[in-house]
Amino acid sequence: MNSAPASPQPSNADTVALDRAHVFHSWSAQGALKPLVLEGGLGSTVWDNEGNEYLDFSSQLVNINIGHQHPAVIAGIKAQADIMATVAPAHAINIRGEAARKITDHAPEGMNKVFFTNGGADANENAMRMARLHTGRDKIISRYRSYHGNTGSAVVATGDWRRIPNEYARAHVHVFGPYEYRSEFWSDSPEQEAERALHHLERTIQAEGAESIAAILLESIPGTAGVLTPPPGYMAGVRAIADKYGILLILDEVMVGFGRTGHWFAFEAFDVKPDLITFAKGVNSGYIPVGGVIISDEIAATFDERVFPGGLTYSGHPLAAASIVASITAMEEEGIVENAAMIGRDHIAPGLAALADKHECIGDVRGSGVFWALELVANRETREPLSAADMGKVKGALVKRGLLPFIADNRIHVVPPAVVTAEEVARAMAIYDEALSEL
Amino acid sequence: MNSAPASPQPSNADTVALDRAHVFHSWSAQGALKPLVLEGGLGSTVWDNEGNEYLDFSSQLVNINIGHQHPAVIAGIKAQADIMATVAPAHAINIRGEAARKITDHAPEGMNKVFFTNGGADANENAMRMARLHTGRDKIISRYRSYHGNTGSAVVATGDWRRIPNEYARAHVHVFGPYEYRSEFWSDSPEQEAERALHHLERTIQAEGAESIAAILLESIPGTAGVLTPPPGYMAGVRAIADKYGILLILDEVMVGFGRTGHWFAFEAFDVKPDLITFAKGVNSGYIPVGGVIISDEIAATFDERVFPGGLTYSGHPLAAASIVASITAMEEEGIVENAAMIGRDHIAPGLAALADKHECIGDVRGSGVFWALELVANRETREPLSAADMGKVKGALVKRGLLPFIADNRIHVVPPAVVTAEEVARAMAIYDEALSEL
Ligand SMILES: Cc1ncc(COP(=O)(O)O)c(C=O)c1O
Ligand SMILES: Cc1ncc(COP(=O)(O)O)c(C=O)c1O
Repeated sequence: MNSAPASPQPSNADTVALDRAHVFHSWSAQGALKPLVLEGGLGSTVWDNEGNEYLDFSSQLVNINIGHQHPAVIAGIKAQADIMATVAPAHAINIRGEAARKITDHAPEGMNKVFFTNGGADANENAMRMARLHTGRDKIISRYRSYHGNTGSAVVATGDWRRIPNEYARAHVHVFGPYEYRSEFWSDSPEQEAERALHHLERTIQAEGAESIAAILLESIPGTAGVLTPPPGYMAGVRAIADKYGILLILDEVMVGFGRTGHWFAFEAFDVKPDLITFAKGVNSGYIPVGGVIISDEIAATFDERVFPGGLTYSGHPLAAASIVASITAMEEEGIVENAAMIGRDHIAPGLAALADKHECIGDVRGSGVFWALELVANRETREPLSAADMGKVKGALVKRGLLPFIADNRIHVVPPAVVTAEEVARAMAIYDEALSEL
Repeated sequence: MNSAPASPQPSNADTVALDRAHVFHSWSAQGALKPLVLEGGLGSTVWDNEGNEYLDFSSQLVNINIGHQHPAVIAGIKAQADIMATVAPAHAINIRGEAARKITDHAPEGMNKVFFTNGGADANENAMRMARLHTGRDKIISRYRSYHGNTGSAVVATGDWRRIPNEYARAHVHVFGPYEYRSEFWSDSPEQEAERALHHLERTIQAEGAESIAAILLESIPGTAGVLTPPPGYMAGVRAIADKYGILLILDEVMVGFGRTGHWFAFEAFDVKPDLITFAKGVNSGYIPVGGVIISDEIAATFDERVFPGGLTYSGHPLAAASIVASITAMEEEGIVENAAMIGRDHIAPGLAALADKHECIGDVRGSGVFWALELVANRETREPLSAADMGKVKGALVKRGLLPFIADNRIHVVPPAVVTAEEVARAMAIYDEALSEL
């Protein structure tokens, strides 16, 4: 018997029509949107209800580190949902303490407390709040090439175009960071780039008045801005400057934490220890909205007697906590961070190097783990970025071949889940190759 | 056979110890915290693992409108978790469109789009962003007696003490609102209070420069500030003033929306239609972190061609969407909003009136639905608030008798889930009575 299902699955056209009638989208003009429909996934693959499948080399917003629908994380959420879905932050519930312990297990010595938020933006808001109150100073220094979230202060800490229409917060200062391929410092080696970027940072601090600066807020590796791995010496140099002037260092690990770069935290690859770490995305691969701040014991102690003036209804949400415990446990047991490191070293790095050998339009390749960028150029000499029109063509060619890409400006970010296999990387490389050949 | 469970439940002491080792709490000094352990619940009752039960007359943070562990909401979350737990906001997924439609079904005519956020704070951030960009004006007027969230701009829109250590946003102006029991306007009737509060608002607008003001942001009924039901005429008057000066009206329905006051939206009790509505809490009773903005068609159209410069990784999260669809459907089918209205009218109102007759320390009783405040005073004549020490005693006496209260300043907020029964209200009234008698 071949009867219709009780509740038939909506067609892509129906889903898009419903979406366009009622859903207002992030960071876009609403008029011309034609969103791609996705209704399911597993590991590195996603699909709609009409039989179309895609290799997810975007990890959605670079946040599905553990892959789609990891059974242990789904089971953890469902088990907690059967007991207690939600509780106010002022109460204690065991799963929340376990989640905080799991997180601090992977943090540096002397960072034992976690303040939970709903996402990356409010994690940065609260880290800046702690730094300001701990130091008694106002200003936050961040970089032009950065993204820190969309709320009042986080969006003004952000460096890119998203800050400009949203400048309602005071006491933010921006600097340029190192970027070897497009140096702001007329440098001609990684060492010189690091040295000059540090000089620029220190001179800005002096000119702003060191005694007015609470914290330096940096993505350990700027993500959306282009996977800008810092040159050797830069991060250690920032730490030394911060210490010299009594300034705190906040590292934003929202995009790079929990396996993305082949480490638990991206800063482990550099010689640096932060005072505050912000996280979200990879901590539970976004299965439940969550973020937070990992706090040094010294900063936490500031608020032993003094009220911490920040909070939110869903801080330390039990389902978020359950998803964090399940996700970190699975990452430990299944060697997922190690897989990301191995895949980056043995498969993505050589794969992208081969593409760069073949395609004139690839100007630069950089990254580690499952966190890479291909910078596409119209001209290798001048490094002129590939046009938006051509980037649109590349995107179309990738999607047509069943690869969901992460595109930013003139770059393809190669950012699959940390569970991606060598076979999936090989398939993706063939698709990138074909799409770039079409140009 | 009576064997120990495979994974024994932790004791309250263990849970508190784990919490104090690793969890940093909202709005408090961390040193002296002794959080109450809660590990489960159903309807209006919560419990720990040691056999202690509490009547939840706090609804946690006034957000569990549908009660704890409503089976339809838990089932909705689990069903979606089995299919697709998360997807990026740029894609379309049917459950998200359904959630947006369910919400707009209850909104006024001409408000058809929803921008989803993670909670109430970022809902207000994005509503203010929309208002500023739509009007081309900067300033937001809000009230001193208000709470709008902890992020950069939301916390500065907030009126209470939580704003003071966090003043990093510009272009916020505060006014006093109507508050009959403690008028700022030397009024002696509700009509006069409304009229004078409107005069004060309009004069402030004129003095600030109407052409600089993007929006008036008001809680439809200020919640944490004291369940300050506006006097007749006030809200219609605000709308008229907003229209007169080309200013938008944002109503913050985060605490009062979705049944709390016995209406789907609290503003339905007043003669007013907002331009933007912010929501969170009651929309899904916090089972999954979520919030959002309901947008008028006119404001939405502003962003048809123009990029909306706001967004977040978890906007329109599938599990949040599933919990919203299940929650609103259950509220409709089970008449939960109607229950809240009936319980307020027939049980809480007479119950609190009887308490006020008996207890000299009750200075004022106000509210509707499952949203009430008892204002406790040391002296009925002078209306001097009951001391913090005495409020602490009342709180202790309530918890000892198995009632979880919501206490703010000198007030007990009587805010059970909207599913509360007459029998539970009767039990609670007996406990309030005993606790107040102990004073
Ligand atoms: C480095 C970084 N910080 C903060 C954020 C903001 O996180 P959310 O979108 O959860 O607010 C992002 C999001 O992309 C990010 O990449
Ligand atoms: C009226 C109102 N607005 C906004 C908020 C902030 O919501 P959230 O805690 O989800 O950020 C609250 C929280 O209590 C509230 O009561």
